Amino acid sequence: MQIVIALFDGFTALDAVGPHQVLHHLPDTEVVFAAERGRYVTDNSHTLTLQAEAGYADVPRPDIIVVPGGPGQAEQMTPGPLQDWLLEADETSTWTTSVCTGSLILAGAGLLTGRKATTNWLAHEELRHLGAIPQRERYVFDGKYVTAAGVSAGIDMALALAGRVAGDEEAQRIQLGIEYDPQPPYQSGSPATAKPELVEYFTARSRFAHRV
Amino acid sequence: MQIVIALFDGFTALDAVGPHQVLHHLPDTEVVFAAERGRYVTDNSHTLTLQAEAGYADVPRPDIIVVPGGPGQAEQMTPGPLQDWLLEADETSTWTTSVCTGSLILAGAGLLTGRKATTNWLAHEELRHLGAIPQRERYVFDGKYVTAAGVSAGIDMALALAGRVAGDEEAQRIQLGIEYDPQPPYQSGSPATAKPELVEYFTARSRFAHRV
Repeated sequence: MQIVIALFDGFTALDAVGPHQVLHHLPDTEVVFAAERGRYVTDNSHTLTLQAEAGYADVPRPDIIVVPGGPGQAEQMTPGPLQDWLLEADETSTWTTSVCTGSLILAGAGLLTGRKATTNWLAHEELRHLGAIPQRERYVFDGKYVTAAGVSAGIDMALALAGRVAGDEEAQRIQLGIEYDPQPPYQSGSPATAKPELVEYFTARSRFAHRV
Repeated sequence: MQIVIALFDGFTALDAVGPHQVLHHLPDTEVVFAAERGRYVTDNSHTLTLQAEAGYADVPRPDIIVVPGGPGQAEQMTPGPLQDWLLEADETSTWTTSVCTGSLILAGAGLLTGRKATTNWLAHEELRHLGAIPQRERYVFDGKYVTAAGVSAGIDMALALAGRVAGDEEAQRIQLGIEYDPQPPYQSGSPATAKPELVEYFTARSRFAHRV
C-alpha cells in the first residue's frame, strides 16, 4: 500500500507529520512525501523544512492521499501541479484525505461537492462556499473522502483511518506505540471551550474572516 | 528567546515536530533544528527527512533545549557531539526538555540524576537505571528539567511549558490555534488502558525489555 503526503510551501508541519507518524506504522506500507518535483519544502513558520522525496509524476496512483493545510493552501486552489495530480490520483485512490485547510484544496478541485467534510474551525464558511457541507466534527468520513479539523486533528483522523484500513486492533496497537493518551493542560482546543476573547483574537485576524 | 530542537538519525518525527508546532507560536521566539553540523536528518521510519539548519556550534546558548527520542537514541548515550553540546548548553539554558526516550539521553549525560522524570512507557526501568526517578505521568517538571512520555506527549508537555514561559492565556491561545481538542477514536494510548495483548506485543519486542 502506498500513502502519499503532498507538501507545498507554507504547509503546517503537524498537519503532515501527525498522520505520517500514525500511518507509517501500518503493515506493508510505503509512505512518500511528494511535491511538484523532489525538493525541500518549508512550512508556514519558516523554521521547519521537510524533504519531498518524490515528484507527483513519480507517484501517480497512491492508495491513500493525504493533503495537509496551512496558509500555503491559498496558493493551491487553482489548476497547477497539486490540483492536477490530485484529480488524477483521486480517480484510483482508495482514500483521499485532508487535514485542516487541506480540505479547501480538495473542495477547490471539486472533490467534496455535496459531501460532508470538516476543516480548520475558522474555515467552515469557506468550505461551504466551495460546495461541501461543513460538519463541526474532529474528522468526517464521507465515502472515500476523510477530512480532519485543524492541525492536531490529523492524528485522530489517521488513527480512525488506520482502523478502517487494517482493523481496530492494528489501530490500537499504533496508538499504544505512539503513546497517544492525550492530556492537554488546558481546555482551549476548540472555539466551544476556549475563552471568547481567544476565539475573537483568531476570527479578527483570520484570512477567512470575510466569510465567517 | 531561542529554542533549539536537537536532531539525530533515527529520531521519532512527532517527538520533535509536536513541540515545534506549539513552541514556534510563542512570541519573540526563534526555533532552530540543530545537529552536529547543518545537514538533513532522517527519522526512524526512514521516510521522513527534516533539515537541521544549524550545527551545535552555531547554537551554544539556547534558552530552551528540546531533545526528542526514538530508536536512534541508543547511539547518543555516550560522549559525542550531542552529549557535549547538551552538557554545555544546559549550563545556561532556562529549560532543558525531552520527549519519549530523549530523557534517556539527558539522563545519560547525568542531567537527571536524582530527579523525577518520565519517558516512553517501555523505558521507565532504563531511566531508573540511569539515575532518574521515573514517574508514570504525561510530563514531569523538576526544576528546569521537563520530560514527556512517549511520542505524542511532547504536545502536552510543550503546551504546559508554553504556559510557564508565557502565561496560561498565551498557551491557551496556541492550543486553540492548533485546534488541540484531542478525540482519539480508541482508548489504547497507555499500557493502563490498552488491551493486555497489545502491551505484551510491545514488551516482548522492546529494546528495553531486559530491564522491564
